[in-house]
Amino acid sequence: MSGIRPTGRLHLGHLVGTLVQWASFSRTDDAFLEVADFHALTTAYDRSESISQSVLEVAIDALAAGVDVQRATLYVQSHVPEIAELHLLLSMIVPISWLQRVPTFKDQIVALGPEIATYGFLGYPLLQLVDVAVMRADTVPVGRDQLSHLELGREIVRRFNHLYGPTLVEPQPALSEFPDVPGTDGRKMSKSYGNTIDLADDEDATTKKVRSMVTDPLKIRRHDPGRPEVCPVFKLHQIANVPRVPAIEAECRSGRLGCVDCKTELAESLNLLLRPLRERRGEISPELAAATLDEGTERARAVAAGTLATVRAAMHLR
Amino acid sequence: MSGIRPTGRLHLGHLVGTLVQWASFSRTDDAFLEVADFHALTTAYDRSESISQSVLEVAIDALAAGVDVQRATLYVQSHVPEIAELHLLLSMIVPISWLQRVPTFKDQIVALGPEIATYGFLGYPLLQLVDVAVMRADTVPVGRDQLSHLELGREIVRRFNHLYGPTLVEPQPALSEFPDVPGTDGRKMSKSYGNTIDLADDEDATTKKVRSMVTDPLKIRRHDPGRPEVCPVFKLHQIANVPRVPAIEAECRSGRLGCVDCKTELAESLNLLLRPLRERRGEISPELAAATLDEGTERARAVAAGTLATVRAAMHLR
Repeated sequence: MSGIRPTGRLHLGHLVGTLVQWASFSRTDDAFLEVADFHALTTAYDRSESISQSVLEVAIDALAAGVDVQRATLYVQSHVPEIAELHLLLSMIVPISWLQRVPTFKDQIVALGPEIATYGFLGYPLLQLVDVAVMRADTVPVGRDQLSHLELGREIVRRFNHLYGPTLVEPQPALSEFPDVPGTDGRKMSKSYGNTIDLADDEDATTKKVRSMVTDPLKIRRHDPGRPEVCPVFKLHQIANVPRVPAIEAECRSGRLGCVDCKTELAESLNLLLRPLRERRGEISPELAAATLDEGTERARAVAAGTLATVRAAMHLR
Repeated sequence: MSGIRPTGRLHLGHLVGTLVQWASFSRTDDAFLEVADFHALTTAYDRSESISQSVLEVAIDALAAGVDVQRATLYVQSHVPEIAELHLLLSMIVPISWLQRVPTFKDQIVALGPEIATYGFLGYPLLQLVDVAVMRADTVPVGRDQLSHLELGREIVRRFNHLYGPTLVEPQPALSEFPDVPGTDGRKMSKSYGNTIDLADDEDATTKKVRSMVTDPLKIRRHDPGRPEVCPVFKLHQIANVPRVPAIEAECRSGRLGCVDCKTELAESLNLLLRPLRERRGEISPELAAATLDEGTERARAVAAGTLATVRAAMHLR
């Protein structure tokens, strides 16, 4: 089980961090792939205008990235009411202190401001566990920063099973190490920094963005030696231009390769990498994306309803 | 809109405090009468075995007390998934601090112990508002101790309507003053004190319980003058034997009336008061109660689904 928050147009970071993985899961596992629109609300409840458009963008990009929706179940979180029901039921057994001690809770309030400290935001890790538990998923791919959320989720499952008998599956983490995807300004690629290369950009826009990228600040003239390890352009070569990485590294260090040429080559590589996805993207109508989500949601609901019936019975609800 | 928590067999306190009011609402208003099983979980999540039985007991007693389910909608909270969905959606906009400052929050943790301090317990007043808002109810009968919950609920509605445009109805309180119903030991009648006179008791059991009641501790011998104002037996006369109250008060104060006779008269009055309800009770099968709840729940869901669609649209969810 894996989810993505629909917070806007998807970018290269989403492709490398999530969609490539989703495409692979969809071919080898019984994957539940969730467009987590409730989760998008926890940090953007006051600017939700674009969420339904963003939900469709995720579906279009997932299909374009090769997710096999015949085998995998691609669905919209808020269209599975069983998720809200299980969240409410499990809320009764989760001590407030467990949620307050999650490291990201206080960090995010500092980062995003006090207006983020809502009841729903406090329950974020519980809702993540519910996403997993309602689909009876046994494995969750997580980055290192999400391990504490999953550990809390496992604790909630153990508490439930202790109180009401073995009912829920305790999910295991599959630790994923994603390559670091820098944006055009060298910081982590993120919509909120305005530094993204979007999957929906055209090739000219991509080239223009790459040309504007920051590089090693000590490489000022064309033939100055560069330091690839501090250069975001080099990091993107490592993602989009793998066979040429050793040569580019050597030529940059020696001063033979200037930044303008290096960026031109990166822009070409990126556009080459993204071309098939962008072509498929153009062929996927919003109607097809919506229909795909509806079909996946129906399958997801069938699984979720089964889990909820088991949970209600375990809790002795009629 | 009014709710009752299914926490066991109903007693005289429920009849006087809630069921009589429900019967009256059901004849004059479009009443939504909720069996609040989610709310029962917030304080009894670890002993939920009896909840589904208790749900049926409420329905049986409500029918026996004369609730007109043709006009009023009698339904089970946890069978309306829209309640859980609206709760999750509204959780995104409710500051944690609003919930923490509710007076009953800290009081109840002191009274019931720290294991009550769950995420669901913190969200209790939000769930109460959701119960009301999802049915678009404009009026809620509340006791003085619940006024702060309703005020918080009104604040949540105002915040929602401010963020997303006018959508939810701001419910008004209808302040209800209920007579004080003491149990056999003089404390408030409550299952947790084991001092109840149950609607399902037979007449002998009722008589036995009344005989065991505490009275004015200073009235030791039959002809000692008594103090009706401190006597729980007298308080129950005020509920079940109203026409005789002035005479009993005078006879008790003068010492003419002994406690044994006074209790005998009370037991007869209580049994007389409860007899029609108990007879109807015996004619209501669990199957009829269940079918009544199912029918009411279906009607409640239709209203709730309409509200949820409006809320989702206001929040721009697809």
